[in-house]
Amino acid sequence: MPANAVTSLTNHQIRLASRPVGLPTRANWSATTEPVTEPSEGGVLLKTLALSLDPAMRGWMNEGKSYIPPVGIGEVMRAGGVGKVIASKNPKFAVGDYVSAGFGVQEYLTVAEADMKRSGLGKIDLRAGSLTQWLNVLGMPGMTGYFGLMDVGQPKAGETVVVSGAAGAVGQTVGQIAKIKGCRVVGIAGGAAKCEWVVKELGFDACIDYKSGPSAVKEGLKAHCLKGVDIFFDNVGGEILDSVLARINRSARIIICGAISQYNNTTAVQGPKNYLSLLVNRARMEGIVVFDYADRYHLAVAEMAGYLKDGRMKSKEDIVVGIDTFPETLLKLFNGENFGKLVLQVAVD
Amino acid sequence: MPANAVTSLTNHQIRLASRPVGLPTRANWSATTEPVTEPSEGGVLLKTLALSLDPAMRGWMNEGKSYIPPVGIGEVMRAGGVGKVIASKNPKFAVGDYVSAGFGVQEYLTVAEADMKRSGLGKIDLRAGSLTQWLNVLGMPGMTGYFGLMDVGQPKAGETVVVSGAAGAVGQTVGQIAKIKGCRVVGIAGGAAKCEWVVKELGFDACIDYKSGPSAVKEGLKAHCLKGVDIFFDNVGGEILDSVLARINRSARIIICGAISQYNNTTAVQGPKNYLSLLVNRARMEGIVVFDYADRYHLAVAEMAGYLKDGRMKSKEDIVVGIDTFPETLLKLFNGENFGKLVLQVAVD
Repeated sequence: MPANAVTSLTNHQIRLASRPVGLPTRANWSATTEPVTEPSEGGVLLKTLALSLDPAMRGWMNEGKSYIPPVGIGEVMRAGGVGKVIASKNPKFAVGDYVSAGFGVQEYLTVAEADMKRSGLGKIDLRAGSLTQWLNVLGMPGMTGYFGLMDVGQPKAGETVVVSGAAGAVGQTVGQIAKIKGCRVVGIAGGAAKCEWVVKELGFDACIDYKSGPSAVKEGLKAHCLKGVDIFFDNVGGEILDSVLARINRSARIIICGAISQYNNTTAVQGPKNYLSLLVNRARMEGIVVFDYADRYHLAVAEMAGYLKDGRMKSKEDIVVGIDTFPETLLKLFNGENFGKLVLQVAVD
Repeated sequence: MPANAVTSLTNHQIRLASRPVGLPTRANWSATTEPVTEPSEGGVLLKTLALSLDPAMRGWMNEGKSYIPPVGIGEVMRAGGVGKVIASKNPKFAVGDYVSAGFGVQEYLTVAEADMKRSGLGKIDLRAGSLTQWLNVLGMPGMTGYFGLMDVGQPKAGETVVVSGAAGAVGQTVGQIAKIKGCRVVGIAGGAAKCEWVVKELGFDACIDYKSGPSAVKEGLKAHCLKGVDIFFDNVGGEILDSVLARINRSARIIICGAISQYNNTTAVQGPKNYLSLLVNRARMEGIVVFDYADRYHLAVAEMAGYLKDGRMKSKEDIVVGIDTFPETLLKLFNGENFGKLVLQVAVD
């Protein structure tokens, strides 16, 4: 792309305007435009194709200490994504290369050579998986599920694995890997359609529809985990975590990946009142942050690409089109409307 | 002791009469007497000298699944203790031998040969520690502290270890071992006297008096754990657990040994609302039950006896005399009145 073509482009962006209390609203965001700047020597200019929308984004909007700094007021909202190199002054990247990076919620991103590592910029191979699979099984959710299950959970064949948010991006990866590793897998998801998909398409042994009644989770665990729960991969927290704690086995492992039920609380987080089950069962509850495994992503990607190829792993993405829909699209995660990994398509390739 | 002397003895016992709601009262207990029976071939007759009174006893009084079955209504209350062999039909035990065992709250215990393992009967050596130290540092609380800290906590020199219930039986052991292993140790205890003892006598680096004000724990942790908390050994639960969760370091270990603040609740246990700190800090919360380490008790006892001998470890027992005081004496644990390991002296040696 010639230089004058670059400078004629306009970059539409979504910025954090204020910190939400409870669910984010339109008023928490501002839409801005900026001219696109040419890359400096050694840098690249990227065009955003699709962005990953994740529950963790809600945490990044809050002030205060977490595993990464919050998004500042007035900053472009943080988001991982996939896109294409449209101008390059770096011999490692050619125009037309597909990449993943911390794009932010915007149409273009110029990355200086010095910022490439920090932005997580890396080429992606569409033979291993589609663009949106690179945001799902082969992306952060997939890595989270893989390393959370394998490194923290340490599953053994024959064990019973329960995963909440089973139809979500992390959940679908966790459950399918656990099946591949020889475990019995029980999902927890919201609604009959998601549960049916998880069992029929992904091959989980069972799936509990937590929306089907007030004691659906308790009874479902009783019915489907006859030998108790050895591993619980939790994306949800709240009552679901407590119900599973009541059914764990000795030496069980509970992987705390998230607590989507609590992210928009305007009161305190609901702590697991059954946590003393950890004592009774000599069990362990442990948190996972995917970035810690960055030096092994390539190994997990290679393994999962193999499963995608041989059909043992499937993926589902829920794709919404248009950067302007970001404020409303994000909310689909919190009301459970998304079916599969939520992706915001920003441009057509 | 000649056989006719045995059969003339009367065994005073305390039995569980009903399950308490909240704090146990006199009405939950019944005092009974039984004639003492001679040991069968291979068995022994033991005289109780002192019993260990532990927070865990409150849990044993409840119905329902736990790490051991509850004490049945009408049964002699379960209690570990130390005593003396007063009649023996087993060549491994001589009259006059000191032993520890699951005596129960009673003056005498006849143990058949087949029940010796189940009752935990074993000789104790008073050169390694005094009778009451065998209920403290060298007994169950000491073993709990040792294996909880060393196996679950895995302390490294230079790390900061916080222990709640610091002046109690488990707490005093945990803190002193952590000091010996080169850690910075901060206790949490109730009252200035306990805190002073923990620092001046046991050598903790600091001790926070949780009774000294509503935000004493929060502020104390801030003041005394400048580099955060690497290991938290929790005997208390509730607000204290939440306050520590807010200050843990990356890869911190939280050992859940008990939750004395919650045992007499008539409402649900207070779950740790800051549990997502486990996620942010990639930290681990894990339960411990001492019985799992039975095959290694002798190693820990040998190590701790060495520390007692060379003066690096001290112990404090709070001794109350008289089996009849059991119902009230037990309550000292729950109102924090005991200062050191609570021991019920049943007879004078």
